Amino acid sequence: MDITGSMLIGSQSVTGTSKTIYAINPATNERLSPAFHGGTQADVNAAAELAWAAFDAYRETAPEQRAQFLECIADEILALGDTLVQRAMAESGLPQARIEGERGRTMGQLKLFANVVRTGNYLDVRIDPAMPDRAPLPRNDLRLRTIALGPVAVFGASNFPLAFSVAGGDTASALAAGCPVVVKAHSAHPGTSELVGKAIQTAVKKSGMPEGVFSLLFGSGREVGAELVKHPLIKAVGFTGSRSGGTALMNIAANRPEPIPVYAEMSSINPVFLMPAALKARGEALGKGFVGSLTMGAGQFCTNPGLVIAVDSPELDGFLVAAQAALKDVTTQTMLTPGIFQAYSGGVDALKNNANVEQVGEGQGSANPNQCQAGLFSTTAAQFLADDSLTEEVFGASSLVIKCNDVAEFIKVAEHLEGQLTATIQLDEADYGDAAQLLPTLERKAGRILCNGFPTGVEVCHAMVHGGPFPATSDSRSTSVGSAAINRFIRPVSYQDLPQALLPEALKDGNPLKLRRLMDGKSE
Amino acid sequence: MDITGSMLIGSQSVTGTSKTIYAINPATNERLSPAFHGGTQADVNAAAELAWAAFDAYRETAPEQRAQFLECIADEILALGDTLVQRAMAESGLPQARIEGERGRTMGQLKLFANVVRTGNYLDVRIDPAMPDRAPLPRNDLRLRTIALGPVAVFGASNFPLAFSVAGGDTASALAAGCPVVVKAHSAHPGTSELVGKAIQTAVKKSGMPEGVFSLLFGSGREVGAELVKHPLIKAVGFTGSRSGGTALMNIAANRPEPIPVYAEMSSINPVFLMPAALKARGEALGKGFVGSLTMGAGQFCTNPGLVIAVDSPELDGFLVAAQAALKDVTTQTMLTPGIFQAYSGGVDALKNNANVEQVGEGQGSANPNQCQAGLFSTTAAQFLADDSLTEEVFGASSLVIKCNDVAEFIKVAEHLEGQLTATIQLDEADYGDAAQLLPTLERKAGRILCNGFPTGVEVCHAMVHGGPFPATSDSRSTSVGSAAINRFIRPVSYQDLPQALLPEALKDGNPLKLRRLMDGKSE
Repeated sequence: MDITGSMLIGSQSVTGTSKTIYAINPATNERLSPAFHGGTQADVNAAAELAWAAFDAYRETAPEQRAQFLECIADEILALGDTLVQRAMAESGLPQARIEGERGRTMGQLKLFANVVRTGNYLDVRIDPAMPDRAPLPRNDLRLRTIALGPVAVFGASNFPLAFSVAGGDTASALAAGCPVVVKAHSAHPGTSELVGKAIQTAVKKSGMPEGVFSLLFGSGREVGAELVKHPLIKAVGFTGSRSGGTALMNIAANRPEPIPVYAEMSSINPVFLMPAALKARGEALGKGFVGSLTMGAGQFCTNPGLVIAVDSPELDGFLVAAQAALKDVTTQTMLTPGIFQAYSGGVDALKNNANVEQVGEGQGSANPNQCQAGLFSTTAAQFLADDSLTEEVFGASSLVIKCNDVAEFIKVAEHLEGQLTATIQLDEADYGDAAQLLPTLERKAGRILCNGFPTGVEVCHAMVHGGPFPATSDSRSTSVGSAAINRFIRPVSYQDLPQALLPEALKDGNPLKLRRLMDGKSE
Repeated sequence: MDITGSMLIGSQSVTGTSKTIYAINPATNERLSPAFHGGTQADVNAAAELAWAAFDAYRETAPEQRAQFLECIADEILALGDTLVQRAMAESGLPQARIEGERGRTMGQLKLFANVVRTGNYLDVRIDPAMPDRAPLPRNDLRLRTIALGPVAVFGASNFPLAFSVAGGDTASALAAGCPVVVKAHSAHPGTSELVGKAIQTAVKKSGMPEGVFSLLFGSGREVGAELVKHPLIKAVGFTGSRSGGTALMNIAANRPEPIPVYAEMSSINPVFLMPAALKARGEALGKGFVGSLTMGAGQFCTNPGLVIAVDSPELDGFLVAAQAALKDVTTQTMLTPGIFQAYSGGVDALKNNANVEQVGEGQGSANPNQCQAGLFSTTAAQFLADDSLTEEVFGASSLVIKCNDVAEFIKVAEHLEGQLTATIQLDEADYGDAAQLLPTLERKAGRILCNGFPTGVEVCHAMVHGGPFPATSDSRSTSVGSAAINRFIRPVSYQDLPQALLPEALKDGNPLKLRRLMDGKSE
């Protein structure tokens, strides 16, 4: 399949007339062909209007039909074959195994949501039967199901060019919910975006879905992205990226005549608490394991462990020596974009130039372009609490160790943090008491709490929360990974005394869709 | 029990030092004693800090303990006896039967949420067991439950001095979720608020809850209310009231350093569609029934039917003649406040002075203060579509009939509407085809769709949605009535590989709380 540089608006390929975008190979800083032509307000309108035209029909497609559509997208992505893998590698600097793994994850997500649609728990069916003889007033027949919110604007993420981009988690969950999707492609991987977009376009056609169910636009976030979020026919937004980008979209959405929900996954430094007994028992192994999590994928994960909290002690010194040694073996990795590399270098330089911060170790360097040299730093809890700049995310393989006077100070450090995607506790049985003291704070601060692991690696399953209080996300009530992500794109509707002929299938007597229902308050 | 004019901050009575508020008896315009002293920023701080101090302990109270606390509040409200009923009548102008009924509803809501806490479905427990042998990577043990968001600011509503005020639906659902509550009392019924607040304060003490679980503040929305929503320790807002009041709170919340969710139930004109066969079969009965719904409680309900849509026809004339006749028998009723009466009179005058609107009928008048004289008006669909002022809510017993050329025009009128709490269809079997055409639009526009009834009367049950797209509410994903209202005040947290000793009860092996769980994606 050729990459043409055109946008996909419904079933059409449309060549933009706004600014031209080129992908850059970050490993070489070379420009990749072809040119991608950015869209205009007219393209935003066309995509949003097609999405709106498709909405009523698409949201009422039968569950099996919608599930097969999602599975068809997965098949079409695989059918792109090596063309997709090579292009994604060239545009992202990520190695082949990672891209192939991410493709598998992307397909897995689509298939998970296919089964979520089939099962239908997200419809939250509740039936309170009529009680005509109730005194003093009879009760009407009331039935609740959820319906889709409307067309969703999805912003592809730079760090997952497949799994959180054009056909990623936001798109999969929105389509599963019954929402048409208009994607604003990330300018770092436009070719990958076009290829995946064409796979979806093919699946739309093969599955007999209304064409407006999917469109793909190119352009800048400030122009095409902002116009999309402002568009009155767009009813929700999915975004993964920077705090500044996410909060900008939140502001636009809140200031619309009709405000809409924004699900932005933004910023997290993912504290790792090393409890004393665990540190004593396996400080060296923890140091090694930590460096593995820190440097994987050049640290370009939302859940990268950017903060380590421990009591200043000989055991911590053992951890640091092991981490330092492990870091020395870490070769550089190409970062996703020159911009991310520059931001990373700036963040690391700020730590190096901070008089209250000490460098503990670093990975190998390289003269090649955009190479991430891992860095590990330390400071004291007192200094950390006094310097807000130290809570800022450095996106990449850099982490800061906070040396505390005692375990009680862990809670002070935790309370000082903003909202997080994850919080990790390394602990042994002797640490349970201290951990129990810390847990309430971590529950208030993070979407996921993990023990004796590292936060990188986000399972796509039912019990996952990839979310958390602001600024980890814009909406702590949601997750962007896992089956509960579908809940972001639905709202409840109640039907009172509707005749059977007019009720949606999900609510009809006899439960034709075989859904889990709450009948008069009882699960059945 | 005496009414003292003091605020309740935790277990203390605190006399405010800001502006003085008096309740007004709207039936006489007389000032009621005592004086209520408004709070200051310091009182907001004190209440929020106590709420925060109570939060971690309160949110982890055992379900049975929290359920009994809610039931104890209901008992303490009943124990206020006639003192409460008389004071609520004097402050609201509402008749005794209504206040007693509303007290029953308030207690019923508290008891419903007690059972919601006991059942625990809102915890949304999901367990994905570890798969240590999975290739290429093992799966960790992942368990999800919801936790409470944090302290909630609740704004009492004028039109339900009991059921949507101090111990109303917002407070009951927030307390059920595990959130401490700080109420900003509505200045129209401060005495009722103090009495109910003391009932909650007593229940907090009797139930052994941390004192900060509940506080009650007096003061203006612009001062005390705004400061409360700005306070960093407040994590969500519940509000029922005007569109201007609700959107002001939305703006404050969106512009905080940490934005928080606002659940504002604001504005709805609740269209009623009269389908041709139904109108033909029972136009007269519909006219009578409609006037009953329109004028109940002086029309001071969020779901009051402010819009009637029908085909211009002899059958509609029959409906209008019956409505006109029924209206003539409607005596005036005292409105809740002089402000509401003035706004109603202004809205009715605007309709009377609108050259494109005709008056169809009106209720009886009165020279007594603040009396609502019911009004019924009509216009054509073309005029309605051309004049945005006609979609504005007139809070009170006024309604506008839209005469359409044909049923196809119903959809145009429906599409022209903003978000609504309800949409009603009066239909017979011959109308099902037309209704099916209209339904997709109504689903997009409203939170509840009802057939062959009238929208007033909101059942407190599991399948109720008292919500809807903006501006009916600030958040279409929520309901403020019924058991699903608890979902507004929770967020999911995922626990990865936590030892049993540290897991919350809801997630432990053996399911000690006997919760409905999703085990590896399957309901059990």
